[in-house]
Order: sequence, then C-alpha cells, then structure tokens
Amino acid sequence: MKIIAFQGERGAFSEEAAYRLLGHNLRVLPCESFRAAFRSVVRGLATHCLVPIENTLAGSVYENYDLLLENDLHIIGEVNLRIVHHLMAFPGTTLRNLRQVYSHPVALAQCSRFFAQHPRLERIPFYDTAGSVKMLAERRPAGAAAIASHVAAAAYGARILKSHLEDHRENFTRFLLLSKENQVSKKANKVSIVFSTRNVPGALFKCLSVFALRDLDLCKMESRPLRGRPWEYFFYLDFIGNVQDTAVRKALAHLREVTHFLRVLGCYPSAPR
Amino acid sequence: MKIIAFQGERGAFSEEAAYRLLGHNLRVLPCESFRAAFRSVVRGLATHCLVPIENTLAGSVYENYDLLLENDLHIIGEVNLRIVHHLMAFPGTTLRNLRQVYSHPVALAQCSRFFAQHPRLERIPFYDTAGSVKMLAERRPAGAAAIASHVAAAAYGARILKSHLEDHRENFTRFLLLSKENQVSKKANKVSIVFSTRNVPGALFKCLSVFALRDLDLCKMESRPLRGRPWEYFFYLDFIGNVQDTAVRKALAHLREVTHFLRVLGCYPSAPR
Repeated sequence: MKIIAFQGERGAFSEEAAYRLLGHNLRVLPCESFRAAFRSVVRGLATHCLVPIENTLAGSVYENYDLLLENDLHIIGEVNLRIVHHLMAFPGTTLRNLRQVYSHPVALAQCSRFFAQHPRLERIPFYDTAGSVKMLAERRPAGAAAIASHVAAAAYGARILKSHLEDHRENFTRFLLLSKENQVSKKANKVSIVFSTRNVPGALFKCLSVFALRDLDLCKMESRPLRGRPWEYFFYLDFIGNVQDTAVRKALAHLREVTHFLRVLGCYPSAPR
Repeated sequence: MKIIAFQGERGAFSEEAAYRLLGHNLRVLPCESFRAAFRSVVRGLATHCLVPIENTLAGSVYENYDLLLENDLHIIGEVNLRIVHHLMAFPGTTLRNLRQVYSHPVALAQCSRFFAQHPRLERIPFYDTAGSVKMLAERRPAGAAAIASHVAAAAYGARILKSHLEDHRENFTRFLLLSKENQVSKKANKVSIVFSTRNVPGALFKCLSVFALRDLDLCKMESRPLRGRPWEYFFYLDFIGNVQDTAVRKALAHLREVTHFLRVLGCYPSAPR
C-alpha cells in the first residue's frame, strides 16, 4: 500500500490533495518539515511524498524547489487543489459565542473579509491550520474555533460552522507527487527540468529557443540562486510533452549543448486546470 | 537631507547598506515592515526607502517584488552588501562565559559552522538581528550575545567578540533605493521592468527576443503569480542599458507589442560586482 509523506499534521491541505490525486486507499505519514517529508521517501519510510510547489496567490514554495535539486527523487504526478477555508469548532462553541479563531497566519490573512465582517473576533496565529484543530480537540478552550481544511474537521471530529471563508475563489495550490522510482506513465504529458546557463549574453534566450523552435509550450519558469556563485541562477522549467516524444528528446539534447547543468526532474500527467 | 526608511531596528543590515550607497550624511527611519518602509516614502515621511531584493544564498525577497508593483515608486539606485556576521555582547560577557546567542533565525542558520564548533552554545531565535542587540543593551541578560551587523554594534555600543561567523563568504544582499521622483542619472546603466505576457505559446520567448535581437544583456529574471488569474505570472526583468539608448527604447516599444502589461520600474547605476 502507498505511504504518502507530507508536511503538517493529520488533516493538512496536503492530505486533502493526496486523496484528490490517489483516492483513499493509502496510508499517510505526517512530517514536521518539507525536508523531513523528502527524507522519509529517500530512507524508504514512505513510498511517496506530496509537497506544495506553488499557490496562485502566494507564489512558489521556494524551499521545495531547492529540495527537488538536493534530493534524488522523481516527480511522477501533480494535482491542483482549490483552497477552501472552513471555520470549525467543537460542541459548545457556535458562531454566536465565538471569540477567538486559531489558524496559520497565511490562512488568517486569506480570510480578511470574514474578519472585517466579524470585528469582535480575535485572530490567533498558530503553526499549522490542521494543528490548530488538533489543539482545539485536545484542550477544548471555550469560545474558540479554527480555520482549516474539511479533511481536518473529519480527522479530529470538529463541526464546520461556516464554509468558504477565503477572500479569493481563485486560490489554488499545485502539489507534486515524488517517488524514488522514475515511473513515466503513458499518459505523461508534462516535463519538469532544472538547468543552469553558461554565463554569456543571451544564454537564457538560447535555452528557451530550444523549446520555441519546436513549438513546445512552457507552463512555468522559476529561478533560484546558485549558491557559491553570486548573481548566477538555476532555472526550473515546466513544459508540455513526454520525454519519449522526438521533439522533446531533441529539445533536451539541444538544451544540453547550451547549459552547464541539466536534470530532468520528472515526466508526469498534468493536472486538469 | 535625505531620510532613508528601511525595515528593521537601528543597526539593521539595510542601514549598513544605506551608508555604503549614500555615505553617512543622512537620517534613517526604521520601520516595522517592508510595507511600512514603502508607505513612508509614498506619504512623504521619508525621501527614500532602501529594501533588500535578493540574497545570493536565500534567493529573492518576494514580498518586495510584490510591493514594487503595488506602489508607484521608482528604483533610482542599487547596492550589493557582503553579509558579515559579528558576535557581539556587553561588558561582563566574553567568549568563555557565553551560553546563549540571540539573532534572526536566518542569521543563526548562516553561522552553523560556528555553532558546530561551540556545541554548548544555545541558539535563541529573535525577530531581528539588530533587534537582538537592542534587547541585550536594554536587559543585559548574563552570558548572552547576539549575531548582527557591525553597524548594530556601533548603534548600541556592543563589543564585537568575534567576526566572520558566516559559513559562506559568498553571501551578498542586493538592495534597491526607491524614491517618489523618477531621477534617471546620466550614469544609469541598468533597467528594471515588470510585464505580463499574452497567454499564447511562445509568449515568454517572444518577450526575451526583443532583448536578444538587440544584444541587450539580462541580469535577473523573477516571476510572481498574477492574482485572480491562476497559472499566469508577472515577470520581473533587469537588463543592462539606459532608457535613453536607442536600442533600449526600441526594445521596450517592441516589448509593448507582445505584452499585456509593461511598467519600467527604474533606470539606475548598477552596483559594482
């Protein structure tokens, strides 16, 4: 059976994303950090890890871009999860007697309209969305609720008082599924790579030309600093294609000619948008 | 006289960067957040603000990329500061009786070799590097030191016990000087822009081609999510040139043809590397 490692407590948005991508026939391994989630796959404690890589409001999760490069894992899938924030509490607490709301600072910030409508509510930052529900389940403070995923409500038996607290409906997080084995499915239609350019004028333009000349569509580009070489960068690129396609093979061979370093991070079925 | 707003307490690395770029004939306005530093210029409380935009180890300061777009300020200068971490304390505390070291978590992490050599020292995360020196100055806890800039030692009268605690010498932060007025100096040889592409295949390649076709050198590229339009991005680009140059004017006119949105953030003298 698949064992999916993720960062956060039981009921984290990553757990919701795991069920969305893989169904419920799996075991989960909550981890303290993204680094620990990657390591648990490297060490064989989990078969896969599922990590957020970008959010449509907050941007990329840069730590995970760095961890992709540090660890020898392969991207074998992705899933886009709409982030829906629910207000939840335990018996005795209702919208009427509610005074304090716990959650991760980013979740609290993403529900600013709700708090503007309920000015008497105190926002209390907590280390984790699901962790705040876990704390309520254990300590049962009076008049307190948490903002988290509906999976967290189910995991700790909390009652949902109000749904869709988020300010923006266009709030999606993209997660990557990583594995030790490089399993390229026949449905794979997206490729993720990382490269560093030679330090010459027009270097990045030349790199992108290998895709443009073959009509290969880019989906995402991200840069990260190359440590020890100030003002040089790693570029992460996602594009549509399969590593078995002739055009993709030729593009990657061509890219090797014009880069210092190139690694294919994975080839996997793209998530519906 | 120039009044320079920056995020952090007196003695922050941003203050050191201000002296490096502008000399000591200035007043400083420490602010609680980057947002507050931008606002103090917009509201006329400061003539300029100086904000970090990228570090050669940690990467870009994404919040400041977003604030560049949100605020109508102009980049009129830049400076690269080598980040040198100093261990400092007040009379009575020496390397021998030292037990606790306060600093910002990033600074503590950047001095991991020093802590490996001194395993009995306890690392205590604090909200700010200079703020930890300020706290020591006020409360004088026994056996405690802080890691911060030498400007912080001078600001609070702390004694430097040890210098160059940082693991990597190649640790630089690039700061941008922002102003309400758009003063393009004759020495200006770098341009920063932000644009969003049309959502068509090869869009980014077309955007970069306007520079490559005119032999204009790119220095840095960064992307940030376009809020409300999932999986679309703003691109921030720095390149070598002056907005008065014919090639630059033509490149920007050409870029306007192939983008949805384009703004010149500033044209300024590049910092020596």
